[in-house]
Amino acid sequence: MICGMNIDEYINKIKEFHGFVAPGLLIGGYMVDLAKELIDEVEFDAIVETSHCLPDAIQILTPCTIGNGWLKIVEWDKFALTLYNRFSYDGYRVWIDLAKTKFHPHIYNWYMRLVSKKDLPKEILVDAIINAEKSILSSMPVKVSNLNKRNKKGDINICLQCGEAYSLNQGEKCLFCQGSAYYKIV
Amino acid sequence: MICGMNIDEYINKIKEFHGFVAPGLLIGGYMVDLAKELIDEVEFDAIVETSHCLPDAIQILTPCTIGNGWLKIVEWDKFALTLYNRFSYDGYRVWIDLAKTKFHPHIYNWYMRLVSKKDLPKEILVDAIINAEKSILSSMPVKVSNLNKRNKKGDINICLQCGEAYSLNQGEKCLFCQGSAYYKIV
Repeated sequence: MICGMNIDEYINKIKEFHGFVAPGLLIGGYMVDLAKELIDEVEFDAIVETSHCLPDAIQILTPCTIGNGWLKIVEWDKFALTLYNRFSYDGYRVWIDLAKTKFHPHIYNWYMRLVSKKDLPKEILVDAIINAEKSILSSMPVKVSNLNKRNKKGDINICLQCGEAYSLNQGEKCLFCQGSAYYKIV
Repeated sequence: MICGMNIDEYINKIKEFHGFVAPGLLIGGYMVDLAKELIDEVEFDAIVETSHCLPDAIQILTPCTIGNGWLKIVEWDKFALTLYNRFSYDGYRVWIDLAKTKFHPHIYNWYMRLVSKKDLPKEILVDAIINAEKSILSSMPVKVSNLNKRNKKGDINICLQCGEAYSLNQGEKCLFCQGSAYYKIV
C-alpha cells in the first residue's frame, strides 16, 4: 500500500499525472508513504532534493505542490525528500539507501546506471521495486534549518522597459530586461 | 471554457490539486487555454516565470509537470508562461497585460497589491476574473533560446562523505556535504 492506495491505483495516478510509469516515481511513492508515516501529521511541507520524478510523487500523494508553495526543490540530484512540520520545522528525511539496494541488484544497477534500458526491461525493474517496497529506504529525523519558510511574493513593481509587473527585489528592471532571457521575440 | 472544461469543473480541479481556489490559478487557466490555442499542438513543453500558482495551472491542464521535466520554472516573479514545440523551440508567451487589467479595476488592484484581502473579498475578485476571461492577457510568438532542452541527469557518483548517490557534475562531494544544507541532523 502507498498512502492508502494499492499499487495499481497508484500506478494509474502516475500515468494520469506524470504521463508514464517512471521507476523513480514508484520508489518515490514508497518514500512519501514512509515519510508520512514517520511524521504522523496531516499538515506538513515538503522538500525534495531533485527535480527528476520525485516532485511528482509528492504532488500526487500529498497536498503539497510547487504552485501552492508547500513543496520546494533543491537541485542536489539526490533521490531524497523531507516532510516537516511547517511551524516547528521538525521532520523526517527519507532517501534511497545504496547499501540496501545491493540486495535488489536490478534496482542498484538501474539507479547507478550500470545497465542499459535494453538489458533491463522496465517490467522487470518495476517488479523489483514493488517487491522491495520500503526495504531500500532509510530515514532520519531532521530539523529543517533553511528554506523552511514559505516564499512570500516581494513588493511588486512595473518594469520601466517592458511595462510588465515583477518583483521589486530583483532590481530596477525585471530579470528579462536585465538580460537573463530564455526566449527571443520573433 | 478552459481547456475544454467549464469554469466549475476547472475550479474543482484547482481545489483537488492546489488545495484552494487561488485567483492566480484561475487567471493561469485562461493563460494556458490561450497558449494552447495559439501553439495548436498536442505535445509541447512549458516554462513559467514564477513559482507562485502558475506551475499548478500548467500541471492541472497539460501533461507537463515538474517531475517529468516538461515544465520548467524561471524565478522571475512575472506572471507569464510559454508553451513551445520541444523540437523547433517555437512557441507562444502569454502574460497578464497590466494595461488591459485597468478595465478590470478589481484585478488590477489585487495584482498590484493596492487593496487588502479584507477590502476585496475573494468572491468579488473571482467573479471579476471569470468575467474578464482572456481579455486581460497578451501573447506573442517566441523562440525559446535557453532552457529549451530537457534536463538530463548527470553522471552519478557515490559521495565519499555521506555514501549517498549524487550527480558527479556537482564536484567530489554531494552538495549537502559541501555545506549547502537545508536541514540539521537531530
